[in-house]
Formats: sequence, structure tokens, C-alpha cells
Amino acid sequence: MALIVQKFGGSSVKDAERINNVADIVTSTYKEGNDVVVVVSAQGDTTDDLIAKAAEINDKPSKREMDMLLSSGEQISASLLAMAIERMGYPVVSLLGWQAGFDTSSDYGNARIKRVNVQRIEQELDKRRIVVVTGFQGVNRYGDMTTLGRGGSDTSAVAIAATMHADLCQIFTDVDGVYTADPRKIPGAIKLSSISYDEMLELATLGAQVLHNRSVEMAKKYNIELEVLSSLTRRKGTIVKEESNVEKMLISGVAKDDNIARISIIGVPDKPGLAFKAFKIFSKLASKGINVDIILQSIGRNGTKDISFTVDKNKMDDAIALLQQNAEKWGASNIVSDDNVTKVSIVGAGMETHPGVAAEMFEALFSRSVNIQMISTSEIKISVLLNKADGDRAVEAIHEKFFENH
Amino acid sequence: MALIVQKFGGSSVKDAERINNVADIVTSTYKEGNDVVVVVSAQGDTTDDLIAKAAEINDKPSKREMDMLLSSGEQISASLLAMAIERMGYPVVSLLGWQAGFDTSSDYGNARIKRVNVQRIEQELDKRRIVVVTGFQGVNRYGDMTTLGRGGSDTSAVAIAATMHADLCQIFTDVDGVYTADPRKIPGAIKLSSISYDEMLELATLGAQVLHNRSVEMAKKYNIELEVLSSLTRRKGTIVKEESNVEKMLISGVAKDDNIARISIIGVPDKPGLAFKAFKIFSKLASKGINVDIILQSIGRNGTKDISFTVDKNKMDDAIALLQQNAEKWGASNIVSDDNVTKVSIVGAGMETHPGVAAEMFEALFSRSVNIQMISTSEIKISVLLNKADGDRAVEAIHEKFFENH
Repeated sequence: MALIVQKFGGSSVKDAERINNVADIVTSTYKEGNDVVVVVSAQGDTTDDLIAKAAEINDKPSKREMDMLLSSGEQISASLLAMAIERMGYPVVSLLGWQAGFDTSSDYGNARIKRVNVQRIEQELDKRRIVVVTGFQGVNRYGDMTTLGRGGSDTSAVAIAATMHADLCQIFTDVDGVYTADPRKIPGAIKLSSISYDEMLELATLGAQVLHNRSVEMAKKYNIELEVLSSLTRRKGTIVKEESNVEKMLISGVAKDDNIARISIIGVPDKPGLAFKAFKIFSKLASKGINVDIILQSIGRNGTKDISFTVDKNKMDDAIALLQQNAEKWGASNIVSDDNVTKVSIVGAGMETHPGVAAEMFEALFSRSVNIQMISTSEIKISVLLNKADGDRAVEAIHEKFFENH
Repeated sequence: MALIVQKFGGSSVKDAERINNVADIVTSTYKEGNDVVVVVSAQGDTTDDLIAKAAEINDKPSKREMDMLLSSGEQISASLLAMAIERMGYPVVSLLGWQAGFDTSSDYGNARIKRVNVQRIEQELDKRRIVVVTGFQGVNRYGDMTTLGRGGSDTSAVAIAATMHADLCQIFTDVDGVYTADPRKIPGAIKLSSISYDEMLELATLGAQVLHNRSVEMAKKYNIELEVLSSLTRRKGTIVKEESNVEKMLISGVAKDDNIARISIIGVPDKPGLAFKAFKIFSKLASKGINVDIILQSIGRNGTKDISFTVDKNKMDDAIALLQQNAEKWGASNIVSDDNVTKVSIVGAGMETHPGVAAEMFEALFSRSVNIQMISTSEIKISVLLNKADGDRAVEAIHEKFFENH
């Protein structure tokens, strides 16, 4: 008998038919003799519908009330799933975040899980019940509802798995695993049987959007084996674990991230003091919650230099506003930005010991006349910034180079 | 400075426009220097929509999961109302039943409030916040969500008012007070400026459906003055209190209740032992939660008698099933039922000291050729059971007799 945590996303429970399908997966796992804890997201578009309702009333509601509103979404899906399991004749109980013991920080809308007091879940499992828990939500020290931010249900599932030392944590989504590239775009994309936490982290950050980043970090920290799989195909998915020892592939995937913008500070005089001041902008951006990714410094004309970097597209306006307040101080002549860009990355633990990977990647891009704007590398990742129009062609070329010709 | 509890029903918060209207009423009360606690029901048809969602998945879901599902409805309306109040620039906080301290029994779907631990509400009022509380719901000793049954939000409001010794408890509905008859049907219906708890209780039981019965009982017990008024007209409503001392009207209202069915046990042999057994059916019905109203015993033919009584229409099938299991034991020849009936009642504290009321009522009915099937009287109430087709005509005739010719 094992303890298995199963998480189902919004599309997996979007209507009665899908809920019954999930109930069937859950009860099959239970029938095999396992303890089963199920974590659910809100149904389909519920969260977006609730946000629209709020917007009709207040275009800037407090985050506290927003969390109160949004946490109703999982309450509905969790109780409906419990009813479907009841109808199949199995013992079940649904629990809200606060009932399941999710203590979080007070950052409404983006709370962090501090601990999960799993006594109630354990009591219910001891009664041989299937336990359905609302994902995405918890309660803070004031006894107020909090939400974990988009994709937080993955984190909820991994937190339960970590606290209870679960044998497996299955994340059911609408794709049946982690692929070497987006299978909707690249017909030759290959499903990986396993991938390491670090590779998965890079892929999540890079826009592959299979798993929520915080959930992978937590799984890595507590060494919880994750399986990413589809609630519809019921085929074996991709295992995320410490070492992807099954295949020693050179790289494990190609990802594209369109949610990105490039900002450049133009014409900063090339004097040590001023440049130093300009670089302080990065800590200022960080303090405003604006994460900077690729950074490039280039020598401009007439003894000036340009500093370019990328940010999330939805943070672009905030970042520009902050820069414009300071441009004069640095002697910068101009702030320019471009959100018509995309970031294409390859990720693979193998590249650490294989120095030719970058060259192969660039070769693939040049062979299709794709122009590279910026480059950034880490031990297991190479990213390039491109014109958005070149994105799909670039992924295709790289995927062909690494996966289809090998 | 007074403490005022304001309760708004589902139609008062059914869309953004109505929610803004409620926010305006609430903040006006707050602006006058009062402490304000607001109790809200779920928006418009939310509860029915949720019930339909559940029915699609399980035609007999557990009541525990049903309460988990339904309690999301007020969570949505409470947070939306709080957002509307925020937008108007007032300090506000919304609280769920469990956060507001509603400890209830464990009868899912029909829980009773055991106590309200109002510390959290008091703390928020001390911060000069408007407090919005979800009606209709609480938490039981196991930490599970419960609901109070239909109309339970009235009870939630009165429970807070009673516990906190509020100066006034306003119940906003879609009618602007208590009338001598249903104003949609009887154009001459008169709005009462006040009515006693007992009269209101009889009217609520009798289908006037202005206030939830349990809420009036609780208001009476703790002597909380209620005001029934409309959230749309903003006119003074009807005050419900110990003594309706303003006008000494003979009767205060005529009510009609179509949610009723008559059941008859036919041909019970007129022997003491058997009849005694048959009457035990009433305790059996009570133990199944089936309330019996008017009871009539009539001598039938050939030394047998018939026992007739009325029940809520939706309990008719359960009651008949129970009777059929026992009919043979009593020697009864048949069980017959009729749900094509209606109950028309007049209520008034004045009739205690004025014996001619019943005669006047019957006279009004006979003058319109309305046939009376059964009669039941209490100190302040006279009810008659009629063919459903006669109902509206009967109310009209009685109303004319007591209110329009005096």
C-alpha cells in the first residue's frame, strides 16, 4: 500500500463528464489498495469568470477580498468531485485549504505555504476515505483566506506529498508528459520518460508551462518523485526526479517563451561612476518584484554604452516607468523597449560535459537565417532572444538538429 | 452611535448594479456614525445553479458535500459586496461563517446555530470597519461547513444581532414590508407599520414568506427589533417587535400557502385500540421530520372513521409511503391524498378578545361560494383548507371583509 497524491488541473474537471473521468482515475488508484489524496483546481474558466465579476464592481479590489472571492472556485470543484466519487460508491471527504491545514504567509494573491498541518488529512485516510483537497489556497495567521497565485495547485499537491512522505505525486494536466518541444507545434516532439528537477525548473521558467516552478523547487528540496501525465489518455507520463538516469540525452527540451520584453538604456556615458549607478537599477527592479533575465552590455558610439535586459512582458510598463525616473541621473540619452521578441532555450544536463552544444544550436539558427539579438547561458541552459516572428521556425530548426537527425 | 445589523437577500445582490445599491445603503448607515454588520445571501440564482451542477453528477449527494458546495455562494456575494464598499472608499472586511464564529449543530443542510463567537466581528468593528458576513452558513464541531437551510441568512442576521445586542436588525428583501395580504395579488393590501413576533410567526408559517420562521423565533427570544424593508425603494418598512402597539387592528394579515397536501387514512375501524395505533402515526411522521398541520377526524360509514391531515407538499410522498407500510395494521381500507389544495389563514392578536372573527371569515368565503374542506384555529390564527382553484378568490374576499370595508 502506497500513499499517492494526485493533482488535477482546471481543464481536467471542467464539466460533469470530466469530473466523472477524474473520479474514475482516483477510485481506480484507491481500489489498488492505496491511500489517495486528491488536489483539485477550480473548474475550467471559473477563476477567470470570478475575476471578471470582480472587475465589473471594482477595477482595483483589495487582494484580501480577491482571495476570498477566488478561493470559492476550488470549493466548488472539490465538492463536485467528492459527489462523483460518492456516486461510484467510495468513501470520500472534501477539505478546504484551511481544513487541510494549509498555513500560508499573508501575501494575498501570492502566498507561500509555511507548513501543512496534515492531522485532519491523516485522520480521514485512517478512516479509509479518499481525501479531496482544494488546491491553490490556504489560510494566514489572521485566519483569512489566501491564494498561492496561478498554478499554485501544483505546489499544494507537492506540499502535501512532501509533508506526508508520499510515494508518488501525480500531476494530471492536458498534456501527457514533458516533451522535447511543444508537441502542438513540433510534430516530431518526443515524450521524455524522465527528466531531472533542474532541467524541469529551467523548462518551467522558460515557458514550457507544464509545471508550476515553485512546485518543482519544493519537489526537489524534499526529493518527491513527480509524474506529469494526462487525465484523458491515461498513458504513463514523464517522471521528474533527481537524476534522469533512463536516457542520457544531450538536451532534454526546446522551449519558447513569448511572455517577454526587451528594454534598453541607451547612451550611458562610459564613466565608471555612472555605469555603476545604472547597474544599481537591477536591485531596484528586484525590490519591485520585477525579475530581470538576459542582461547585455554593449559599447555604443562616442564613449557611451547601452545596457539591455529582458523582463516579463506584463512588467514592462512598470520597469520603464522606474527607468525613466532615473535616466537623467545616469546621463542616459534614451530608454527603448520592444515586446515583439521571443526567447528560445534549450535545456539539458548533458551539455555540462559537452561543450559543442551552443555551436550546434547557433548553426541550426543560422541555417534558417534566424538573427540572434541576445544570448544567455547557464550550466544546463542556453537561451537566445529573437524576433517573435522567428520563434516557431527557430524551435523547429533546433528540435530537428538535436532530436530528429540523431 | 448604534450597532445595526443589515441583511440582504439574494435578489438584493443579484448583479453588479444591485450590489452597488446595497453598498450605498450600507455606507450611508455607516456614515451616520453607526457600527454596521452586513449579512448577505448568495447572489440571485447561485444556489439553484449549484444544486443543478450537483444533480448533474450525483442525484443523491451526501448533505455534507452539498453544504461544502452551497456555502461557496455567499463567499462570492460577500467578497463582491466588500469590493463595492472598498471602491466607495470605506474600510470593510468580509468574513465567512466560520471566521465570523458561527458554531452550528452537525445537521448538514439544516444546521442550527449553537452560538456565535463574535470576537472577530468585534475586533473588526473596533477598527471601524464595515463587516460583511456570509449568511446561511457555519461550521460544526468537526470543523466542517454547514448550512442553515433555505432562508437561513435571516437567522444568521438575527443571531449576530442577538449576541451583540444590536440596536436594530434590518432585513432587506424584495418587498418593502409586511402587508395585510400579498400586494402582488390584492391591490388593496395595506403595509403594516408594525406587527408582533407571534403574528409574524404565524404569517411566516402560513406561507407569507417574508421572514424565515427561525429568525423570528430567535428575535422574539432575545427581544431583537426587526425591520422588514426593501433594498430598492428605501422607504420605511415594517417593524417586528413584542407588541404591535401602533394600530390595534383586529387581524394583521391574510396569507395563502399552496405548498400543502392533504392525506386521508380511510376506513379505520372505530375500535379504541386500532384508532390509538393510527394516531401513533403522527409521532412516526414527526420522527421523520414530516410536520403535520391541520388534523381532522371524521366518522365514516359502517363504524369506521377517516383521519385526515395536511403536510408540506414536498413531504407528501414520504408520508404516504410511511402510511402504506402501516395501513393494514390499523385495518384501514385506503390511503388517499390530494395536493390540489391551498391553505388560507388570517392572523391577528386582536382575535383573542373578539370572538366573531371566525364567523366573519366564513361569511366572506360563503358569500363567494368557496367550499371549506378543513378548519384549524389557534389563539391568534384561523386557517381553512380549500380547493387550490378557490385560493385567490378566498384571499380577496377575506381581505375585502376585514380591511377594505372597515
